[in-house]
Amino acid sequence: MDPRVREHAEIIAEHSVDLQSGDNVVIATPPAADDLAVALHEVVGDYGANPVALNADSRSSRAYLRSSDDFETPEHKLALVEETDVYIAVRADTNVTESSDVDPETNAEYSQANQPILSERLSKRWCLTQFPAPANAQLAEMSTEGYENFVWDAINKDWDAVREHQAQMVEILDPASEVRIVSGDTTDVTMSVDGNPTLNDYGEKNLPGGEVFTAPVSDSVEGEVLFDKPLYHQGREVTDVSLEFEDGEVVDHAAEKNEDVLTEVLNTDDGARYLGELGIGMNRDIDQFTYNMLFDEKMGDTVHMAVGRAYDDTVGEDNERNESAVHVDMIVDMSEDSRIEVDGEVVQEDGTFVFEE
Amino acid sequence: MDPRVREHAEIIAEHSVDLQSGDNVVIATPPAADDLAVALHEVVGDYGANPVALNADSRSSRAYLRSSDDFETPEHKLALVEETDVYIAVRADTNVTESSDVDPETNAEYSQANQPILSERLSKRWCLTQFPAPANAQLAEMSTEGYENFVWDAINKDWDAVREHQAQMVEILDPASEVRIVSGDTTDVTMSVDGNPTLNDYGEKNLPGGEVFTAPVSDSVEGEVLFDKPLYHQGREVTDVSLEFEDGEVVDHAAEKNEDVLTEVLNTDDGARYLGELGIGMNRDIDQFTYNMLFDEKMGDTVHMAVGRAYDDTVGEDNERNESAVHVDMIVDMSEDSRIEVDGEVVQEDGTFVFEE
Repeated sequence: MDPRVREHAEIIAEHSVDLQSGDNVVIATPPAADDLAVALHEVVGDYGANPVALNADSRSSRAYLRSSDDFETPEHKLALVEETDVYIAVRADTNVTESSDVDPETNAEYSQANQPILSERLSKRWCLTQFPAPANAQLAEMSTEGYENFVWDAINKDWDAVREHQAQMVEILDPASEVRIVSGDTTDVTMSVDGNPTLNDYGEKNLPGGEVFTAPVSDSVEGEVLFDKPLYHQGREVTDVSLEFEDGEVVDHAAEKNEDVLTEVLNTDDGARYLGELGIGMNRDIDQFTYNMLFDEKMGDTVHMAVGRAYDDTVGEDNERNESAVHVDMIVDMSEDSRIEVDGEVVQEDGTFVFEE
Repeated sequence: MDPRVREHAEIIAEHSVDLQSGDNVVIATPPAADDLAVALHEVVGDYGANPVALNADSRSSRAYLRSSDDFETPEHKLALVEETDVYIAVRADTNVTESSDVDPETNAEYSQANQPILSERLSKRWCLTQFPAPANAQLAEMSTEGYENFVWDAINKDWDAVREHQAQMVEILDPASEVRIVSGDTTDVTMSVDGNPTLNDYGEKNLPGGEVFTAPVSDSVEGEVLFDKPLYHQGREVTDVSLEFEDGEVVDHAAEKNEDVLTEVLNTDDGARYLGELGIGMNRDIDQFTYNMLFDEKMGDTVHMAVGRAYDDTVGEDNERNESAVHVDMIVDMSEDSRIEVDGEVVQEDGTFVFEE
């Protein structure tokens, strides 16, 4: 087995979920991630922890979702998750479009019924990661070996060094009031982050990590943004999304391809027209777009903004949290003719941070 | 997908576990049985039941068993099984010798720690079945397609008709006192089954089913038996086992190949030298030996006897249950020059039952 699989498993155990002897652990893997499942079992044994292996096969879930029309919370799965200490979820596809003929409404009803399990799972030590399966390489338009290199370069690294590097950006953004993002002549947007904490994502709950992020004050966003990286939403690609903000609200929008998908997102509910997240991608081993938000949003020299729901931890107690059923990230390339200003000072120009000069 | 996979799944749901709407179901499958996992999810959806999929990968369990040296009952798995209504376990190997380098003592300690989970599981509606994977075909020395035909012929059948057919043998054996098994000049053994119930296995907990079985009264077995079908124990083949009984105890034993394995079994504990089961194989679709006891013991025109532990349900309240850590089945071919006598009457001769004449 590729030694990077074992290294990946060790990083999950040691760094991401801080595995302890006696921990009860759920290892949820799809068939395409069998090798990582094996390595995780070996590592879990080394730690003296107790594994249960879930089979997260999209063929099975598709078959179930298409044949069932009534969903309730599976109490046996809830009991499993309640009694676990650690939940490791691995993504890897055999066919990334396996769920393309599942009715989106069915999907939504199933998610609703499983909400108590998700909440329980997020209250544990957990990690979401990716195994480099051929179908994911295909989505990224890469060879399988090239994609393996890409994934493991982004994941198998010194996360303590990443934490320290990113902390410099947290120190700038956390106490700040106003952020301005400028890129070419298509993006110039300002927003307040006053009172909202900035978080440092260094590969714990998401592996890879590699971003610092906060929430804009909902009604403070002004200006326009062109998201030059494509958005991939519910299996459809939306390109060249542009949004115009007034008093925080999206008052105009357009897209080159599949604009109706964007319109649908923005019409979900009131909160879907306001930003819920501003993130700064800082993982430079992620140097290309792979249609996988777990990687794309951490790409070096990018920023991303999400319309919709803001994360609890990123909203200060004096500010209101933007609520919505959606949280859709979109990415701006900041590597050329771009800058980030914080309270009037340029903190990043053409992809280089002030603390890197 | 082969339509026999869906049929297999339907038989499990409808016949074996009597699936009901709202049931919580565990579907435990190894990677080689992915197709049956998919079909089971589809059928479980049809019934309005709630699936949880466990990944029973022998590569993962081997990795865990080799790296861990301290086992405790995994409480999260116990919670899962306590809250389930139905447990479906599917066997299918990618490599039948995957566990060949796991220390047997480690295996025993792990089984010990998981005993509460096994007990809980056996208190539910459960089914153990086989998917025809290439590695299992290889063990049976058959082509994959030939083995698929063999497995599904043995499984996908009218089990109500089987129940009725086998009930005729139960009616003979259940009230009986003495059974005599004669085959050629190498097997002539008598035993009392007085007061011990005879059970009818028609594809519920074991799929395929196809035997009627009871427990001999421990100290009643007299005579000698040559088991002409090979025994496959902990990855080693033992051929031409012969046992000689006095007052129920094995007083002499021999084998053509790997006699030491047989000796080890018999020396496990006191109960390992006494019979715990007498079974009559009646599934004539199982017409060849495949080194898989789930099938072999139900082979048409055979009887099997197990040294070691007797099943609770097969021991009447006035009789003592033979206790042992082992339960090892061995098979006698009854198709030629053989007969079963019950209370002095011949009930099967050369594979034909009296009720078939």
